[in-house]
Formats: sequence, structure tokens, C-alpha cells
Amino acid sequence: MKHISITTDFGSGVGSMRGVIWSIAPDAMVADIFSQIPPQDINFAAWYLDHEVWYFPPGSIHIVVVDPGVGTARRPIAAQIGEHFFVGPDNGVFSKLYQKAEKNNWPIRIFHTNKPEYWWQLESNIFHGRDIFSPIAAHLAAGVPIEELGEEIHDEIRIPVPEAAFNETGADGEVILVYPYLGNITTNIHRTDLPDDFDSGKAKLQIGETTINGIRETFGEAQAGELIALYGTAGYIIVAVVNGSAYELLKPEIGDKVHLIY
Amino acid sequence: MKHISITTDFGSGVGSMRGVIWSIAPDAMVADIFSQIPPQDINFAAWYLDHEVWYFPPGSIHIVVVDPGVGTARRPIAAQIGEHFFVGPDNGVFSKLYQKAEKNNWPIRIFHTNKPEYWWQLESNIFHGRDIFSPIAAHLAAGVPIEELGEEIHDEIRIPVPEAAFNETGADGEVILVYPYLGNITTNIHRTDLPDDFDSGKAKLQIGETTINGIRETFGEAQAGELIALYGTAGYIIVAVVNGSAYELLKPEIGDKVHLIY
Amino acid sequence: MKHISITTDFGSGVGSMRGVIWSIAPDAMVADIFSQIPPQDINFAAWYLDHEVWYFPPGSIHIVVVDPGVGTARRPIAAQIGEHFFVGPDNGVFSKLYQKAEKNNWPIRIFHTNKPEYWWQLESNIFHGRDIFSPIAAHLAAGVPIEELGEEIHDEIRIPVPEAAFNETGADGEVILVYPYLGNITTNIHRTDLPDDFDSGKAKLQIGETTINGIRETFGEAQAGELIALYGTAGYIIVAVVNGSAYELLKPEIGDKVHLIY
Repeated sequence: MKHISITTDFGSGVGSMRGVIWSIAPDAMVADIFSQIPPQDINFAAWYLDHEVWYFPPGSIHIVVVDPGVGTARRPIAAQIGEHFFVGPDNGVFSKLYQKAEKNNWPIRIFHTNKPEYWWQLESNIFHGRDIFSPIAAHLAAGVPIEELGEEIHDEIRIPVPEAAFNETGADGEVILVYPYLGNITTNIHRTDLPDDFDSGKAKLQIGETTINGIRETFGEAQAGELIALYGTAGYIIVAVVNGSAYELLKPEIGDKVHLIY
Repeated sequence: MKHISITTDFGSGVGSMRGVIWSIAPDAMVADIFSQIPPQDINFAAWYLDHEVWYFPPGSIHIVVVDPGVGTARRPIAAQIGEHFFVGPDNGVFSKLYQKAEKNNWPIRIFHTNKPEYWWQLESNIFHGRDIFSPIAAHLAAGVPIEELGEEIHDEIRIPVPEAAFNETGADGEVILVYPYLGNITTNIHRTDLPDDFDSGKAKLQIGETTINGIRETFGEAQAGELIALYGTAGYIIVAVVNGSAYELLKPEIGDKVHLIY
Repeated sequence: MKHISITTDFGSGVGSMRGVIWSIAPDAMVADIFSQIPPQDINFAAWYLDHEVWYFPPGSIHIVVVDPGVGTARRPIAAQIGEHFFVGPDNGVFSKLYQKAEKNNWPIRIFHTNKPEYWWQLESNIFHGRDIFSPIAAHLAAGVPIEELGEEIHDEIRIPVPEAAFNETGADGEVILVYPYLGNITTNIHRTDLPDDFDSGKAKLQIGETTINGIRETFGEAQAGELIALYGTAGYIIVAVVNGSAYELLKPEIGDKVHLIY
């Protein structure tokens, strides 16, 4: 029983990828993680994956198709990161995962999946999600060892994944994700990095010209319409409006600075 | 073989919920029922569930995350209703299902799932869909008896689920669901509650200032662009425009009164 | 292990269809191909299916619900086309698949699925996707032979699926699909139909008042913002803007003429 996840910027799921997977690994259980990564936004995808993939069982295989360089010289890769497997373009989209693995001393092995015998027959050069990544993931699910699928590389592409800086009186972070539909804004300040004597009630979060008092545990601690900071689903401090949209209110952009005052 | 459904107001499916489920019950078959419940609209969800869940096999487990009170004192619950299981917040979202079970003399048992050993490790307090409801559903799928997952309660929250009133000459109902994308409007007047001598051809449905003649069986009985009433997918009388949108035409709101004249 | 795909114009997946399928075939693996076929657009669906279904394993069962005539006299059908099975309305939506099968001498058998014992109990007459097509597909998955499900017909409905015309100096084709979200435009000129001495670098594609030089293999061969023609995911020539939207630029309609000059 193998589990495969799919994360793309296609806007909706793509049936042919499941078709290819099931043609090679008929009993693979397949789930979309998210199909609405902002188009070609490698940075968004890098952070988003870190919010989702670790909830899957060890041995899961995660396909990522956020791939502005499809069909160019950028390499298709398969990576083992900790106990999980990843298949996608070597364009930096796995950078946050590499970083987490290194912090935790998890193993990382990366392979350039350059053996066409493990690809689908190519009918085009612009849909590696279907023609390379899906069959590679399915061969992994069917039991082919990752080292069989290509040659190991050590010069994988990485993009910066900005970490918040913590000092005596506060932390400097930035906006890493915005969710127009839900209205929330995610920063890169994680609760596990806060000082031991951090007082959520006394802290202040500055975002743009706005200062928010206190970091909440739940939406229910505030009134409808109130702009609040709270610990988000992945442990990062997020900004939200209760029953509303902080995104509409603040119109933040990825990379906007935030400052946490202890 | 266990089947799990997921209904949320998240806008799209959420991969981490499937990850948690498969970490506990690797062979569970998981389907999204609908991810676009209007945000925090418990009333919509209550009716919508009744349109969908009974089509699943007996023993299915249905997760519902329409949860404006997440992280507050509202209880997480697991319920057996008839031959189906439900996991979600105790905020009234299952009210229509309770009502149907009582009408049909189906068993109802409700448990406050307050044992953290059956939860995921909590990284935040705002995503019980992933951290409490998904693992509870997965433990059910993996064979844990529902009574093991918490303590039975009898004071579950219920919201009003307005039933249509039938008399000699007509029925008073209301709008219970609107579908902006498809353009249809659903009322709470169900065909099985109509008098034995009800004549679909002679009946009239009043909605707002508009009167519609006849209740149709199919869209094909009318012309493109025509505003019609017909028996909807769940047996309730709905209002639609053939190849168009009654929603755009009438802009109804949930709770708007409708009147059926026999 | 049977695989079932679902293609609809509903805007999102529909849980009750999976419920019905699993009630009859509990271990069927079900995937959405696409839920956002433009409403009631049989022509779009006919072409789209041909881009997707053949990637699934032989024996797969494909449900299609693009069904403006639901509830009228149009017949529900199940078809074997090559090694795949299809269930849906007899409204021409399978026309491109029939055409491909005939070109390739694949078998075609079509059955009018008129035996209510293989349907779900009908609660309405407007959702055959749930009440007829899903149970028929599930019975196929559960092992019922297709010829048991209805009576064979030979007068199936077909819609025109315009083929490009090729001559000495060029090809006359048309726009068959537009993707507002991704921004691409698909023509019916397929690379396998081009002359042996076709020179992608020298060819020109005319669409509306615009002429595009060369047919590319990948987006990466051009600059961001450039309007290009290239071989699309299914082998057809498509029109796109690198990191942008040809749809927004050209606002094409299905059926618009295109001309390829060799």
C-alpha cells in the first residue's frame, strides 16, 4: 500500500496524472495536496509543502509540479528526504524541505531521473508532471529503488527560504504565504523558536503600519471582525480577521517584513 | 475496506487531512464530498450533508469541518446516526441528520471525543479538522469502537432545520440552499410530503414576487432561459433557469419564504 | 482492482457519485479527471476526454456527465471503446473517441443502459450522473459484463469533430479548446499528421490577425511575455504566452480558424 500526493499550480486536479500512476502502480492511493499554488510560484510551493507533506505516512511519495522551466535544461529529480520521497523539477521547490531535513539530521539523497525507460512515452515536452514525474513516482510506489531511477547528484538547486531572526527583544520575520480565499497571512516566525519566557499576551506583532496586540491560540478569543495574530496550523504566527479577511484588509505581499516585539 | 468522506468550507481539498488519515488507516478510501460550503455556514452544511451522505455505503465515516468555533469550548464529537458515522464540531452541523434519524427511528449515539490519545499531536489550536476530526475518523476506520473515543453525551447542540408546513391548499416553505455556480435554488418542500392527489402540472410555486406554474420532472420540459420549478436531485422542489441561473435572476437568500399552491 | 474516472461540468467533485460507486463496488479507485468542463459544452468535453482517458490503465471505466438533455429522451449509454469503458449520455460527447477508435481499428460496442435494476433508486430525474451513470460504472467495475447492462445500439449520436485539412503548403485547422485559467489555446492540428519534411523552425501559424513564427518544443525556448506556438501536452499545436495568457491576448472562440504554413 503506497500513498502518493500531488501538488501543482494547475488550478484543478489533472486526471491523466492519476491515469499514468495507476497504469504503473494500480493500487497506489493518490491524493491532491493542493492544485492552486499561485502559477509558477516556487517560493510559495516550497513553504506550502512543508506545511503538508509531513502529515503523510513514512514512505509516501510526493509529486510536485510547479515548473516554469519545464522542457528546458532544468533536471527532473527524485529525492529521499527523511522518510519521504519527492519527485519534481530541480528548481528549488524542495528547498524548505532540504533545510528542515538538515536541521533535524534527516537523510537527503537526490537523483537526476534521466532514464527514459522509467518515463511515459513523451508526446510533448511541456508536461513532465504527467510524462516524467508521475511515472517516476509510480515506479517508486511499485518498488523500484530510488537509486535505480537516475544518477545521484549533489548540486541540487536551492532558493532562499528566509528564516526569521530572533534577538533579545523581538524577532524579524516576513510574510511567506498569503491565502486570498481564506483571508489569512502566514509569517515565518515559528512558535518553537520563541524564547522560553515568551508571553503571548504581552507580545506585539507589527505588519506594515499596523500593530497587533497579543498572539492568540484561537479565533474564538476575539470578536468577529477583529484583526488578530495567532499561532497558525503549522505553528507559524499568522495574521487573520475573525470571520473575515486579513488579506483584503492589509493586501500584503510575499516578503513583506513583520516584526514581533516580546 | 472503509470509506471516509470530507466536507469543508476550505475552498479546496486539504492534503494534510488525508495524510493524517492514511497515517492511522493506510487503506481507507477517502473522498471529498464538497470543499466549498460557504465559509462557516453551518445551516448550509446541515442541509447539504443530508443531500450527500446517505449515498455512501453503510459504515462510512463522514468528516465535517465547518467550524467557526474551532479552538473554543465547543466540543469535538463523533456520532453514529443510523448506519453511518460522523466526526466534527458540536455546533449543530449534524442537526438535519439527527432530525432525519429520529423521523426514521434510526439509532443516534453521540460521543465527546475528548481523549487526546486519539488525536494527532496538536501543533496549533485552529485546525481540528486535521488534528482531531481526521485522526478520530481514521481510528474508527481502523476498527476502534466509537464508544472508546470519548464519553457519550445527550446534550448535543442543534440548530433549527425549518420544515415546510403543509395544509389543505398549499405548503409554506423556504429557501434552504443556493448554488451560485450552478444557478439553482433549493427549497425545503419535499415531494414525498406532498398530498396523494398533488397535481404537478396545476401547482404554482411563489418565490418573492414571482409565481412559477407547474413543477417539472426535467429541464428538458421547458425552453432555454425559462424560469421553472422542478424536483431536484434530493427530491426537494428547486427553482432553476433552463441553461441559465435562477440565482442571478432572483438573488434569493437562505430563509426567503416560498409558497406552494396545490 | 478497477479504476473509475469522472468528468463533469459541475464545477467541483460530487461526493454522492463516489458514495453510489462505493456502495456497489467498494474497492473501486475513483479519480476526477476534470470537473470544470464549461457548462453543457459537449464539444469541449469530446476533445478533452481524448486528451485524458487513454492514460488510464486498460479496463478503466470513465463516467462523463456533460448532459444538457438529462431527463429527456436522450439515452444513457455504456460503451466499450478499445480497451476502455465509458458511461454517460448519448449526446455526442464520445464522438472524438469513436473517431479515434475507428482510425485505429479498435473495437466499439455501445449499449443503451435501459435496465432500471442496474440503476440507483431514482429520487429525481435530473441527476443521471449519480442515479444511472455511477451505478452502471460501478456494476462494470464489480464485474457485470457490459452486454448485461442494456441493449446494443448502432445509431449512437455523434457531433462533428472537425479534423484539420492538410495540403502541400499548409494545414487548415481550428481552435478546439481554450483554457482561461492556464491561458492556453489548443488547435486540432496534430504533430503526427504533419508532413515528414515539416520544419518546425520555418513554419508559421496564423490565428486571427496574428502570425506566429515557428512551432516550439518548450516554453523555455522563448522569452517571458512572448506569444508562441508549440506542441501541446496531447501533441496538438497550441498557442500560449510564456508566463502569461494567450487567451487574454487573443480572446479566441472555439471554432476560430487557424492556418499553418509549412
